Amino acid sequence: MRLAITPPTDPTAYPFAHPIRVRFAETDAMGIVHHAAYLPYLEEARVAYLRHIDRPYTRIRDEDGIDFTVIEAFVRYEVPLRFDDVVDVHVLVGKVTRATFQLGYLLTVDGERRATGVTVHGCVDATGRPGRLPAWIEVAPGVG
Amino acid sequence: MRLAITPPTDPTAYPFAHPIRVRFAETDAMGIVHHAAYLPYLEEARVAYLRHIDRPYTRIRDEDGIDFTVIEAFVRYEVPLRFDDVVDVHVLVGKVTRATFQLGYLLTVDGERRATGVTVHGCVDATGRPGRLPAWIEVAPGVG
Amino acid sequence: MRLAITPPTDPTAYPFAHPIRVRFAETDAMGIVHHAAYLPYLEEARVAYLRHIDRPYTRIRDEDGIDFTVIEAFVRYEVPLRFDDVVDVHVLVGKVTRATFQLGYLLTVDGERRATGVTVHGCVDATGRPGRLPAWIEVAPGVG
Amino acid sequence: MRLAITPPTDPTAYPFAHPIRVRFAETDAMGIVHHAAYLPYLEEARVAYLRHIDRPYTRIRDEDGIDFTVIEAFVRYEVPLRFDDVVDVHVLVGKVTRATFQLGYLLTVDGERRATGVTVHGCVDATGRPGRLPAWIEVAPGVG
Repeated sequence: MRLAITPPTDPTAYPFAHPIRVRFAETDAMGIVHHAAYLPYLEEARVAYLRHIDRPYTRIRDEDGIDFTVIEAFVRYEVPLRFDDVVDVHVLVGKVTRATFQLGYLLTVDGERRATGVTVHGCVDATGRPGRLPAWIEVAPGVG
Repeated sequence: MRLAITPPTDPTAYPFAHPIRVRFAETDAMGIVHHAAYLPYLEEARVAYLRHIDRPYTRIRDEDGIDFTVIEAFVRYEVPLRFDDVVDVHVLVGKVTRATFQLGYLLTVDGERRATGVTVHGCVDATGRPGRLPAWIEVAPGVG
Repeated sequence: MRLAITPPTDPTAYPFAHPIRVRFAETDAMGIVHHAAYLPYLEEARVAYLRHIDRPYTRIRDEDGIDFTVIEAFVRYEVPLRFDDVVDVHVLVGKVTRATFQLGYLLTVDGERRATGVTVHGCVDATGRPGRLPAWIEVAPGVG
Repeated sequence: MRLAITPPTDPTAYPFAHPIRVRFAETDAMGIVHHAAYLPYLEEARVAYLRHIDRPYTRIRDEDGIDFTVIEAFVRYEVPLRFDDVVDVHVLVGKVTRATFQLGYLLTVDGERRATGVTVHGCVDATGRPGRLPAWIEVAPGVG
């Protein structure tokens, strides 16, 4: 397991947050958001974070010719999310190595903690071969 | 609207059926299968039908270099599906033109009707340009 | 088929539009948004429309004790959507009967048409029994 | 983090495996299965495992009046899954405490490892309050 960061539970520790409103399609028969729906939330927030630091993912794909892969993903579900909740997904860049970087996430609703998560990413070129991370990752805001 | 077929409500009118067990992830907060989850059911059944007539979709993509696109989709929801239901998705080939073909679907659980659907498909090459349908579609079992 | 409206292709014919940014999770191996992902877009726009006319769906569920069911859904896919596109989903209320109402949708990106759709809805109480539609539906903005 | 088991990479270490064929809807624009689609695979396999040991989840919900919640989920993605792959999802019961149990997963295609995963579960009653786990979990096959 490469997972090596513990996402802070204090929202002010994060340089960026992205709001997402829960869709009805994301709920399940327990009346709450299905646990698999959280990973697209983390992804949407990560894409918004990259846009925010002026590294939009479409440009990373189309111009740099690379894709960020997901090597590991972890979610800790604390309090259920419900239909129509507006979830603030806080994002920070954690550990960066030559080939991987880790992002930490905190999900809150009205400032109250609902979940935390971590994703570990690598990088592949257009042929699917692993490559070096772009240098700007190391200096992205929020790298701790 | 190109949609031009009415799926029979009699299961014996179909040359093929494919069973799918409902996942919990596919339910919603009303306690039933979310309406958007039906389209992947139709798709899974359509892929199984193509495999059944010895035209596996992976071969269509990799060898013939074409993709079937979805031009229109229609679903009529009659009786809700629930978690763990085993749904028989019946498939037939309806109207075929030079550039499009239509599939009709009947969804049953224990022989009782739950939904019907229609999808209209075209064909694109690897560059995304529309192309002619392969000739075998016209003689596929179930063409009415 | 109850489907009885043709969604206008002119955005100005709609009283409401809701923007949705395409998630990477919603794309498929053809490099475009998977056709099943459109139904949650229509749903999100419909929920936003209800909030906009001051009939938030959470209140409909919790206070009025009813749920809107989906009886039929139709989508016509014209030009593919791609990752990171911002899709404007235009919504109008079409035909209203005592027991059902129909919504029409137009999806555009930068003002250009990508898809249209129709959903037909009924109404159930907390026990799942069909009921009468609330009267406000008949006078909702956009009823044509 | 409660996650405390490491899923074995040897398929023979697992008492149960469940085959799932990848849907086209589950792929993404990188041409592989989207990372969020793995969690429903683990869920489907877990439900199949419970049925296999004669504890079908529908009975757990309807008769015992409890639901298993997901407290934590972890996936390690090693080799991508592709459309139409038949994935064998191996399941075992790992650590069991009074209030939680952990399941380990190994995903293989043609016997080759593609991913591993862990889910940590608790138990709630019909009102959503946490409860004790049923005793049979402790003696389920595969508890290591």
